[in-house]
Amino acid sequence: MTEYQHIFEEVKKGARKLTGITNDQVNFVLHNLAVLAVENAPFLLEENEKDLQRMDPENPMYDRLLLTEERIAGIAGELVQVSALPSPLHQVLESKTLENGLDLQKITVPLGVIGIIYEARPNVTFDVFSLALKSGNGLVLKGGSDADHSNRAIMSLIHQVLENHGLPVSAFQLLPPERASTKALLEAVHFVDVIIPRGSQGLINFVRENAKVPVIETGAGIVHTYVDESADLEKAAAIILNSKTRRPSVCNSLDCLIVHESILPNLNELIAPLLQKEVQVFADQKSREALHKHELISLADESHFGTEFLSLKMAIKTVSNLDEALDHIAIYSSKHSEAIVSNTQEHINRFLLEVDAAAVYENTSTAFTDGAQFGLGAEIGISTQKLHARGPMALKELCSYKWVIRGNGQVRD
Amino acid sequence: MTEYQHIFEEVKKGARKLTGITNDQVNFVLHNLAVLAVENAPFLLEENEKDLQRMDPENPMYDRLLLTEERIAGIAGELVQVSALPSPLHQVLESKTLENGLDLQKITVPLGVIGIIYEARPNVTFDVFSLALKSGNGLVLKGGSDADHSNRAIMSLIHQVLENHGLPVSAFQLLPPERASTKALLEAVHFVDVIIPRGSQGLINFVRENAKVPVIETGAGIVHTYVDESADLEKAAAIILNSKTRRPSVCNSLDCLIVHESILPNLNELIAPLLQKEVQVFADQKSREALHKHELISLADESHFGTEFLSLKMAIKTVSNLDEALDHIAIYSSKHSEAIVSNTQEHINRFLLEVDAAAVYENTSTAFTDGAQFGLGAEIGISTQKLHARGPMALKELCSYKWVIRGNGQVRD
Repeated sequence: MTEYQHIFEEVKKGARKLTGITNDQVNFVLHNLAVLAVENAPFLLEENEKDLQRMDPENPMYDRLLLTEERIAGIAGELVQVSALPSPLHQVLESKTLENGLDLQKITVPLGVIGIIYEARPNVTFDVFSLALKSGNGLVLKGGSDADHSNRAIMSLIHQVLENHGLPVSAFQLLPPERASTKALLEAVHFVDVIIPRGSQGLINFVRENAKVPVIETGAGIVHTYVDESADLEKAAAIILNSKTRRPSVCNSLDCLIVHESILPNLNELIAPLLQKEVQVFADQKSREALHKHELISLADESHFGTEFLSLKMAIKTVSNLDEALDHIAIYSSKHSEAIVSNTQEHINRFLLEVDAAAVYENTSTAFTDGAQFGLGAEIGISTQKLHARGPMALKELCSYKWVIRGNGQVRD
Repeated sequence: MTEYQHIFEEVKKGARKLTGITNDQVNFVLHNLAVLAVENAPFLLEENEKDLQRMDPENPMYDRLLLTEERIAGIAGELVQVSALPSPLHQVLESKTLENGLDLQKITVPLGVIGIIYEARPNVTFDVFSLALKSGNGLVLKGGSDADHSNRAIMSLIHQVLENHGLPVSAFQLLPPERASTKALLEAVHFVDVIIPRGSQGLINFVRENAKVPVIETGAGIVHTYVDESADLEKAAAIILNSKTRRPSVCNSLDCLIVHESILPNLNELIAPLLQKEVQVFADQKSREALHKHELISLADESHFGTEFLSLKMAIKTVSNLDEALDHIAIYSSKHSEAIVSNTQEHINRFLLEVDAAAVYENTSTAFTDGAQFGLGAEIGISTQKLHARGPMALKELCSYKWVIRGNGQVRD
């Protein structure tokens, strides 16, 4: 048995011991962890500093890696918030009595063991622990090597709290920060029930290519907003500005503005607020011709469509009708969030029905695709696949179900 | 672009055209296909005969490959039955209005394109077509080469009906019966949304190892029934007999009987009905010693535990208490169906809570794990994984959902 197999077996065994844990116990653990995190802030910051020293402060990941007292206080607050959410377990989804007297119940249960592969964001360690525990799941974490000191420090606090409460420490494990860990985790069939990669498209692709364990892909958002012929242009301008510039680095931010050709005479007005915010625009031939010369505007090439920019960049595509817009979206969308701005009810209805995405919007900003905004509580990611969970994934989506059948000697004919 | 990619693109495009198809249209198609199948029985039987001629009648697959007039009439009846089921589409799963006035609805939608890899069972071609169409999904079929004449004949009828109704023929495709088809299908990321293998454990393992597209594993049932100290032995005997011998070749049939050691003095009585039905028993040391000599009883070795027999064979494991039974099941179960026979409420409750399986039973036969028995309508398989669908998968499980958000110019702070 390899070293990894031993770890996976321990997690599986530990996760079995979580069965029957009460919501009160979970909440008590989360509260105590919040207190412990704040009390041990100096220790966490010291360990975090070791990671920071190995990273160039100019690296965009530096800020994500950085812990501060304030951030630790924020993390503690989030632990308490998760404890306040209702338990997703033991919910009766369906219930019926069959003619033969069998009593059937479809009841929510934990997925079992969840694997998370993530990059240098130590807050994720606290975050996914709280969601896994609240949903009764064991956890195997593979963090980025850049954050290993921080992650190990956090795990030591988590293990301490679990031990204080007599809960199975082995159900929550951090793998060594080696490439081999990722490979072993992706192949841990029979031990790990699902893997959720949190990070770049490169990481997600690697996971999809190599996983034998079921995967939920999250986060890739190639997002469109279509401004229809009948759109209220003032609203359209506000919606586009919001979805592009509110937080350009997040997955629900706008990547490609699709405009009906009848809008072209107003295109300069429509995107003026974006240019003020320094958004770089890659416009197709027709829209380029309609726009004044501006240093931020250049001609798009094919590569600008179907790109998730995650920055202050945006493509523009011109279409002659709704069908062309729908076709463009069908080809380039990552099925995350898509919006139409229109006053033509028939077009709105077709868009909402025909566009295949986790979230489809009428006359509003795609920035709303978020677990908290949807009222789902804390979120572990935004699923871009259609199996199991779509869009914001919260506690409910970390559960499976079982059929419980109570009988009295019945046999089948 | 390879030949396969061209097919997958056509299916994806065709599946998009299924959006907006009404339940009445679907039902009309299914009725017409039922009529066409019966009318064209001579053609189907002729093509089926070409496949049969290439197979040894002694092959256990021969009977599964065989079509008869009666079986075709049965298939037609099933098409009509599927049409009678409620549509799983456009169901509002959740609905709320946010404080900012946004109107959210979580609505069921098709998965998109479903890939099915199956062996020489031509009835499956009709079967999965009806379920895919009813749930608005496109379909890529990879059937066994043994059944290729039959499958192509069936697909020609399906395409004829679709064409008569002006529906997208390209949304439902049968791949050539080559190994390369399977590989191409397993890698058809962005074109196929889920693959469901229907067949042997070998096929399922191959799919899991090689798929880049999400997979739902179905059908492998390593099934236990635990007879507790307090069990009503008469009921226990009837339950065991039913779950082992009703249909030994199906996935919910009993593979391993677990007995509390206090039952050993009654073990001969308990399994007498099985021996009468010629069930071959592999008993562990303790249970072997408790049993009279009998030509059908031999000593179990490790290989008999964790085996799905799919035949009149069964293992027996002796335990000293409930915990040992739970441990044995945790190690060897395929998480399909597990039962306890007991009159101790505390043991029953622990078993139903702690055993991790799609269906857990109290005092009844595991033979009930079946979509129709559970009242779910037609079934495409029994999922043994925990993601998306667990246990019997019917129309609802062939759907995903989308969030539809209607606004009036809202933007996020």
